[in-house]
Amino acid sequence: MTQATTQTGISAAQQEVEEELVERVVASFDNCENPRLKQIMQSLTTHLHDFIRDVRLTEEEWNKAIDFLTAVGHITDDKRQEFVLLSDTLGASMQTIAVNNQAYEDATEATVFGPFFLDDAPEVALGGDISFGAEGQPAWIEGTVTDTDGQPIAGARIEVWECDEDGLYDVQYDDGRMSARAHLFTDENGTYRFWGLTPVPYPIPHDGPVGKMLEAVGRSPVRAAHLHFMVTAPEKRTLVTHIFVEGDPQLEIGDSVFGVKDSLIKTFAQQPAGTPTPDGRELGEQDWAKTRFDIVLAPAQA
Amino acid sequence: MTQATTQTGISAAQQEVEEELVERVVASFDNCENPRLKQIMQSLTTHLHDFIRDVRLTEEEWNKAIDFLTAVGHITDDKRQEFVLLSDTLGASMQTIAVNNQAYEDATEATVFGPFFLDDAPEVALGGDISFGAEGQPAWIEGTVTDTDGQPIAGARIEVWECDEDGLYDVQYDDGRMSARAHLFTDENGTYRFWGLTPVPYPIPHDGPVGKMLEAVGRSPVRAAHLHFMVTAPEKRTLVTHIFVEGDPQLEIGDSVFGVKDSLIKTFAQQPAGTPTPDGRELGEQDWAKTRFDIVLAPAQA
Repeated sequence: MTQATTQTGISAAQQEVEEELVERVVASFDNCENPRLKQIMQSLTTHLHDFIRDVRLTEEEWNKAIDFLTAVGHITDDKRQEFVLLSDTLGASMQTIAVNNQAYEDATEATVFGPFFLDDAPEVALGGDISFGAEGQPAWIEGTVTDTDGQPIAGARIEVWECDEDGLYDVQYDDGRMSARAHLFTDENGTYRFWGLTPVPYPIPHDGPVGKMLEAVGRSPVRAAHLHFMVTAPEKRTLVTHIFVEGDPQLEIGDSVFGVKDSLIKTFAQQPAGTPTPDGRELGEQDWAKTRFDIVLAPAQA
Repeated sequence: MTQATTQTGISAAQQEVEEELVERVVASFDNCENPRLKQIMQSLTTHLHDFIRDVRLTEEEWNKAIDFLTAVGHITDDKRQEFVLLSDTLGASMQTIAVNNQAYEDATEATVFGPFFLDDAPEVALGGDISFGAEGQPAWIEGTVTDTDGQPIAGARIEVWECDEDGLYDVQYDDGRMSARAHLFTDENGTYRFWGLTPVPYPIPHDGPVGKMLEAVGRSPVRAAHLHFMVTAPEKRTLVTHIFVEGDPQLEIGDSVFGVKDSLIKTFAQQPAGTPTPDGRELGEQDWAKTRFDIVLAPAQA
C-alpha cells in the first residue's frame, strides 16, 4: 500500500521530499530504549505517513480529523468510551483480537469481548436459566467443550451474557439488577446446556461522533444478534467469542464492529408453543428456540 | 510495509483470517456516497490494519493506546490542542504540508504554520522593527521576493512572527500586548528588510500525554530556533515557512515537529557591538546579527 511512490503526477523531487520526511520521523525513535515501543512507534508513523501520502490529505481534511478526534475525546468519560467505539467500528478491535488469537487447527474462532462483561455473574446448574427475569424468547443452548483432539473437557467454565429483547444489557437498566448473564461448568462428558434468550440485534451508542461518522459513510450502527461466551479450562487458551443467529438480517447488512465469523453463525431452530422442551420445562403459550454450539479449545501455548 | 503477509510464524490460515477482515472493513465503506470520504476511510482502515498486523499489537498495548488517546482528548480544550501536538510530533502535520505544497522548480520550501499566527499584526515600513519591545538580540533580515523565473515581485505581503529570547510568543504573555510580529511589503524591486530578533529554541508544551510520549521514546520536545514567514502575492502560491539558524544545536538534536529543511537554514552572521548597522541604527553596546532570505514563490496553480 505504498501507492504514493507509484502515483502518477507526483514528481521525483516531491517524492524525495516526502520520503526524506518519513525517514527523519522514523529515525527520531532510534534512541528509544524500549525496543517494543520503538518498533510500534516506527511502524505507526510509517503507516500514518503512507496514509497521508496515499490520499494526498488536504489541510482542510487534516483540520476535520483534528476536530473529529477532539469530539471523540470530549464525549469520552468514565461511562462512555468513544475511542473504543471508534476502534470497534474501524475493525481495529477485531483485528487486534485476530492477531492475538491465531487460527489453530479447528479450534473455535474468537471474536470481540465487548464492554458488557461482569466477572461476578451468578452460577447456574446445567440446564439452568440464565435470564433471571430478562425478557425475550426462551432459547435452549447446548453443546460440548473439547480439545483439538476431540477429547471432552470436564469442568470447563463457561461465562455467558447477552442483551434482552429490547437490546439492553442489565448494566443499562436503572435498577442495578443482574440478569441475562451467568456462568456454568461442563459435566464429566464435557457437555453443557442452559436456557437463555434468542439474541436480537441492537445499535452501539450512535449519538456521538462515531455515530455521525457511520451515518456519513452510510453504515448501520447495529450489531448482529449474538450471545457472548467466554470459556476457560486448565492448559487451554481462553476463548472469548459469540454465537450469531442464522437468518438475522443484520448478518447481511453487516455487523457494525465486524465480529461475525461464518463458523459462529448458528441455527436457532424455532419451536412453536407446545413443543416439548428438552428438560420438560413447561412454557405454556410461549414459543421457543434451540441451538447447539460445540466448542473446541486450543492449547494454552498455541 | 505489508510485513504481516511475509512474517514468519504466521500460518496461511491465520493470514487468511486477517486479510478477510481487512476486506470486510474496506467493503463496509462501499456505499459511502461521498467518493472522497470513501477513499479516505478505505485507505485509513487499510493502513491501520496493516499497522496492527505488522507489530502484532497485543490487547494490553491496544488498551494503552485507548488510554493514551483518552488522555490526549481530556487535556485538549479551547487553549490547548494536544491532538495537533500529537500530529506535529509524529510528523503528520509536516507530511500534510508537504503533500499540499509540492516541490516546484526552485520555489522556496514550505514548513509548518504553527499555532502562534495572528492576522492583525501591525504593518512596519521597510527597515522597520517588528520586535515592539520583545527582548532578544537584534537581527537585520533582508532579501528579495521573486517568481520562479527570477522576476522580482513588488508589493508582496510578508507576515513575520517569532518568539522572544525566553522562547515565548506574545500570545503567551499575560498582558495582551502584541510584539515580535508584523507585516510589510516588498518595494518596486521586490526587496524587503526589517529588524527582528535572532531566533532561539523553545519546547512545545510537554506537560501532557504527548510530552510523556516524547520522554518515553527519548525525544526532545524542543523546536529548532526559527522565524516564521507567510508570503502572499497575486497569482502566486501562498508560502508558509520558517528560516532556521545555522549552528543551532537543536538542528542536530532534531526539531520536535520535523519542520527543518536544509534550504531554510540561514547564517545569522554575528556582529560585535559597535559594528555599523545597514540602516545606521545605533545599537550602542548591543551586539547584533544579520541574515539574508531570498524568497521564490511558485505559481498559484502549480
